[in-house]
Amino acid sequence: MKDFKNYSGDTIYLKLYNCIKDKIKNGSIKNKLPSIRTLAKSLSISQNTVIKTYSLLEKYNYITSKKGSGFYLTYTCDETFYPEDHMKNEDFKYSYFNDKCAINFSSASPESTLFPIDTLKKAIADILDSEGAKALLYENPQGNLDFRQALKNEALKSGISTSIKNIQVISGAQQGIDIISRILIQQNDIIVTEDPTYKGAITTFKENGGKIKHISIEKDGLNLSELEEFIKINPIRLLYTIPIFQNPTGISLSIDKAKKLIFLAQKYNFYIVEDDSSSDLYFTHAIQSIKSYDIYDRVIYIKSYSKIFMPGFRLGYMILPKEITQSVIRAKFTSDISTSGLNQRIFCYFMKNKIWDIFTSQLRDEFSKKQEYLYKKLKQISYFTFDKPEGGLSFWIQLPKGITGEALYFKLLKKGISIIPGIVFSPHFTSYIRLSFAQCSYEDIDTGINTIKDTLLELIDINSK
Amino acid sequence: MKDFKNYSGDTIYLKLYNCIKDKIKNGSIKNKLPSIRTLAKSLSISQNTVIKTYSLLEKYNYITSKKGSGFYLTYTCDETFYPEDHMKNEDFKYSYFNDKCAINFSSASPESTLFPIDTLKKAIADILDSEGAKALLYENPQGNLDFRQALKNEALKSGISTSIKNIQVISGAQQGIDIISRILIQQNDIIVTEDPTYKGAITTFKENGGKIKHISIEKDGLNLSELEEFIKINPIRLLYTIPIFQNPTGISLSIDKAKKLIFLAQKYNFYIVEDDSSSDLYFTHAIQSIKSYDIYDRVIYIKSYSKIFMPGFRLGYMILPKEITQSVIRAKFTSDISTSGLNQRIFCYFMKNKIWDIFTSQLRDEFSKKQEYLYKKLKQISYFTFDKPEGGLSFWIQLPKGITGEALYFKLLKKGISIIPGIVFSPHFTSYIRLSFAQCSYEDIDTGINTIKDTLLELIDINSK
Repeated sequence: MKDFKNYSGDTIYLKLYNCIKDKIKNGSIKNKLPSIRTLAKSLSISQNTVIKTYSLLEKYNYITSKKGSGFYLTYTCDETFYPEDHMKNEDFKYSYFNDKCAINFSSASPESTLFPIDTLKKAIADILDSEGAKALLYENPQGNLDFRQALKNEALKSGISTSIKNIQVISGAQQGIDIISRILIQQNDIIVTEDPTYKGAITTFKENGGKIKHISIEKDGLNLSELEEFIKINPIRLLYTIPIFQNPTGISLSIDKAKKLIFLAQKYNFYIVEDDSSSDLYFTHAIQSIKSYDIYDRVIYIKSYSKIFMPGFRLGYMILPKEITQSVIRAKFTSDISTSGLNQRIFCYFMKNKIWDIFTSQLRDEFSKKQEYLYKKLKQISYFTFDKPEGGLSFWIQLPKGITGEALYFKLLKKGISIIPGIVFSPHFTSYIRLSFAQCSYEDIDTGINTIKDTLLELIDINSK
Repeated sequence: MKDFKNYSGDTIYLKLYNCIKDKIKNGSIKNKLPSIRTLAKSLSISQNTVIKTYSLLEKYNYITSKKGSGFYLTYTCDETFYPEDHMKNEDFKYSYFNDKCAINFSSASPESTLFPIDTLKKAIADILDSEGAKALLYENPQGNLDFRQALKNEALKSGISTSIKNIQVISGAQQGIDIISRILIQQNDIIVTEDPTYKGAITTFKENGGKIKHISIEKDGLNLSELEEFIKINPIRLLYTIPIFQNPTGISLSIDKAKKLIFLAQKYNFYIVEDDSSSDLYFTHAIQSIKSYDIYDRVIYIKSYSKIFMPGFRLGYMILPKEITQSVIRAKFTSDISTSGLNQRIFCYFMKNKIWDIFTSQLRDEFSKKQEYLYKKLKQISYFTFDKPEGGLSFWIQLPKGITGEALYFKLLKKGISIIPGIVFSPHFTSYIRLSFAQCSYEDIDTGINTIKDTLLELIDINSK
């Protein structure tokens, strides 16, 4: 800041103010300002002048003083950090509906041949025989009572003890995220998410006025030191996490971190939104949800069934902290009055008759083998850097330097293979891809991986020219 | 404004400014300010001073000048006009889920015994046999292609010629209103609705930042003179209307007014949200939608099937102006990704196999008779003031002076009869009730109306003491 005298201002403290302000804005000052004494000394000005400058910076919300700790930059969302145009309509093409491709490495929903269609037919017939038209009347906006009872028991299996009063049925996880955003986010509230993460959530948080702050992920889940560093200074409203087989990384949060996270939520007064769609797909051992450790009632647990069980079915549920239950019911009513009562009954039937248990057990058998098979194939491609997740239906793969996931995506698309480029999950992971094996046969894996390898080599070749 | 000199301000024009500002705020000036010349003369001040005052008032958004017409008050939503607490959680109890009552005059959805359950079972079996698991995959967010094709043909019957590109499938009308609100309403945009109207819509508009302006209803629908008077001065974003068998009044918009309304939408640049859930339930002749006259592509047509066909089914569609189609698809995706694909296929099957046509025709037969029966019963109660709608499943009844719909509601509830008090539809119609015969047997009507009559007499008796 030695150059502060070149800045505009009638007085020294104003010149210094404009100097620091500019440096904060252009990013050349980060995190913290020097102490008053240090700065005064280094610039050969009085401490009083620095105090006046810092007060002004605080007044205009550039910095926050923390007693005994110093002066920290106030967080302001940098739009270059997560630009709007990263969320273009274009992104649609990457994700869910790329059914023109012969080999589909993009969908993380199980291949439909696994759906228990005959059982479904029987379930519907049984329900309509026994309940008749009652099954088709307006449903309780919070969810069918029998279904919530079954969900309560289901949650117990994952260590979550709750009451049907705190359960809200939803039409898939996306609706849950949407409802939570509506009732909890005020304009400019800061929402913390993992980096990378599921973009549907981010779009929804932003549409509801939230500013996004990304926190990196370590091998045992969210980087809690980085998180605490940030929330010490910046109050946040929500933390959104996919703790089990995270999308797209496949990483799971450790028990220690889960407990620590709840402690932080209590200490710094925020809610944790726990998005769970894959916990049933464990290949080594089941992992408990954060909600099961939630001694402070800080976790909003969102469970989707759509993702692994008939995605077109649109069904899930939330377990809510007591204090937001009423607001959630009202927001659900505003969104679509209630979730299809017939679908709720069908899923209830599946749970009561253990069909769900058998189904998930089959999925685990089927996909742990497939994961192992794909893992071995991928290992043969030395250009790939990746880990083997303990569950879920995807690999998160770093490409060689200079190759973007998008370039690979477009080249593969022409060859009838769909993958998801990393940019869909974060602007910081452009050289990554997500490879899912949910819809692939073993044959698809053989052919697909060979083509991917060849295509990658083409790209490396182009790059080196 | 003779007292303007008593107001604070260093100069005359500032004193006058503060005087007028206060009077606007406390409501003692309404609609329009006097002309510059008139005011200058009456206060014995220069016209220049008044011009300065008016400019300041305009700058701070208290008034709007209209060339050649004068100075109008800018509309600001008066919260006393539609108080928040009118929308308390309490209202839940009035409407959809009052299934504890032996006699239900509150639901406007047909009794479930009319649902074609066996046909439904056959439809589901046929769909799963022919399409298999495909019926349960992720569905196109805009809606299943076959279903949209069927909807396009269905719309043609109501005189609406559209393309499948402009059709968006939704999980019931409420979701349509919600999506439209999200993409079109900016903070403080003015939304015009009928008075009284369906409150689910108003809540949604307000939650999305809209300010509500009510316009009264005449025998042939919305009061268009009142509307134009208002929109001449206040730009509005949306006009929400239920033009056919309006909820709760049962009134329908005339063809002349429908055409005029589209002309106004074009002239004053707003969208018309047309909510149609009852047009199939005509008892004299079919009435065409506003959308069918929409030469300027100004109408967002929202059709709900849930209301008359298995309400727990959650299904409807929108026909959209071209320019908002893409935004709507994206907002639908954010809301819940897509509507249940199985439900879309079921309804598509019902349309293709004429089951829907037969079903609505049966409903018309059944309910025109029931309406006539109830009408005769109600006519015998001289305390009631009401008209006979040409369709729909409700009567909108004015109670004798001094009796509120709410008082009657609570007394009837204790006797096992549910009605809906007028306050649910508007704070201006406290002495009204909506009486629906959708779920009543003839026996219910006999018993129910007798009890309602007796209860009304009790209330009149109490009131006169």
